[in-house]
Amino acid sequence: MNVYVVYLEWPEKCFRTNPEALALLKKLAPKGSRIIRARTEQGFLRALPSATHVITWPFKKEWFELAPKLRLLATPSAGRELMPTEGPKGVKIHFGGFHGAAMAESVLAMMLAWCRGVVAAERLSHWPKIALSERCYRLAGTRAVILGYGKIGRVVGDRLSALGVEVVGIRRNNVSSLAKEAKTADWLICVLPSDTGTTDMVDAKLIATLPPRCVIVNVGRGNAIDEAALASALRRGRIAAALLDVWKKEPLSPSSPLGRPDVPNLVRMPHAAAFYPGYVSDAIRELASEGLLK
Amino acid sequence: MNVYVVYLEWPEKCFRTNPEALALLKKLAPKGSRIIRARTEQGFLRALPSATHVITWPFKKEWFELAPKLRLLATPSAGRELMPTEGPKGVKIHFGGFHGAAMAESVLAMMLAWCRGVVAAERLSHWPKIALSERCYRLAGTRAVILGYGKIGRVVGDRLSALGVEVVGIRRNNVSSLAKEAKTADWLICVLPSDTGTTDMVDAKLIATLPPRCVIVNVGRGNAIDEAALASALRRGRIAAALLDVWKKEPLSPSSPLGRPDVPNLVRMPHAAAFYPGYVSDAIRELASEGLLK
Repeated sequence: MNVYVVYLEWPEKCFRTNPEALALLKKLAPKGSRIIRARTEQGFLRALPSATHVITWPFKKEWFELAPKLRLLATPSAGRELMPTEGPKGVKIHFGGFHGAAMAESVLAMMLAWCRGVVAAERLSHWPKIALSERCYRLAGTRAVILGYGKIGRVVGDRLSALGVEVVGIRRNNVSSLAKEAKTADWLICVLPSDTGTTDMVDAKLIATLPPRCVIVNVGRGNAIDEAALASALRRGRIAAALLDVWKKEPLSPSSPLGRPDVPNLVRMPHAAAFYPGYVSDAIRELASEGLLK
Repeated sequence: MNVYVVYLEWPEKCFRTNPEALALLKKLAPKGSRIIRARTEQGFLRALPSATHVITWPFKKEWFELAPKLRLLATPSAGRELMPTEGPKGVKIHFGGFHGAAMAESVLAMMLAWCRGVVAAERLSHWPKIALSERCYRLAGTRAVILGYGKIGRVVGDRLSALGVEVVGIRRNNVSSLAKEAKTADWLICVLPSDTGTTDMVDAKLIATLPPRCVIVNVGRGNAIDEAALASALRRGRIAAALLDVWKKEPLSPSSPLGRPDVPNLVRMPHAAAFYPGYVSDAIRELASEGLLK
């Protein structure tokens, strides 16, 4: 008998276990399976001895020995921060790969809100018509360099292409073309994970190669950007803007270089690019579609 | 010899004659043509006797008799407000039809900025993570009713379809299905012209049929919406939001029902949906592609 232990308690509602997701899991799991919802770490650890499948946000290496029947350790997260990337023999480790569609919508949202004047209209005083007429531009016909071209980066690229953007994808393990491509980028879009040596990939040197019209977007992890260098570039008008969802330290502190309220042309999002009500259900659907609920 | 008189002086830079557009016109017109840029109404009227082609924002009926050689009277505007819709025999009247692509980007910008939390992040205080997690939703999978399904409405529909939105187009001369379709609309998108009886098509009665989750978008003309009824619906939370680019009276007055700063869930744009630097060039390109510069 399969025993699914679901431990998805989290401050954000959309990242939490919910009745719809549990009903979906029940429907997709083999008949006669048991589903346990853990609400606390204590409860989770108590359930581990019977668990064949675990769906969780955090998991510590030492917990494996509490779960001798474990076959699947899955997290909805795409990031590797909360769970070991390897486990004992016979335990499949799974990180979520379904986020691309929602995150691509958020990337589009930030880019379009910027170039079509929605952000400017929010920030400027009443009826800012003349100001907007000098700031608005078309998304179609621009050129986007996507740094980090894995599962999520490619979905972002597909959506941008569909709207007429020229897309150049650069994988993090082959950045030889980055400095050259950066020179003509209207958008530099980071979709990098926090591990594998990505810290400060966008540094003062790379920013110096960008054209003044370039806008930096980040929906990967905040470590990828040298925040002091970016704040300085924004203050000097060296690049046009930055649209950021992730930060070196979260929550973003008002005392950090990019947290100060007077940094110009900066759109700040609170690590929200994957927020949507069906998030946990989609994570479960993905496990089923990959045959991992068996 | 063709004589093109271009009279596009306007407060917004992107709607004004510019060197690139004049160079493009020269390139697309038959060899040996003359191009006159009028900067004032007086200069325009002085140039009319020699004009074979006129590209202008305003044109008054009585000006036709000043232009005996006129074969084309063209305006970049899609709206019928500034120019007669009919002229003397032998004069072709042309209204711009190229706006769809830019306006569809603006519609997407407002919709995505709303449902992906960019507007909320701008308005809420520092690090509004929990608040956003309860407001953000996916664009894909929603259902949009587009009221006004001409040239521009259809481009809006195409872009939304490409992003996974279910689109229902309703032409203004056949609104028999509107009340029924409105009942399940996640978005009611107005792309109506100001003439042909569109005033207050979105009134209290129609708003009452919309589900509470519905967001009203308007990029057509402001007369289509009963603003007092919409303000009341927003204040009562009867619908989720309104994202408006056009208004009954422009500029929007702070004393009008939708101009008051405390109307909730309202995004205000200053009739900016077609702003982009290549606007005038695209207007000229369209005339050439329809064979109207001959």
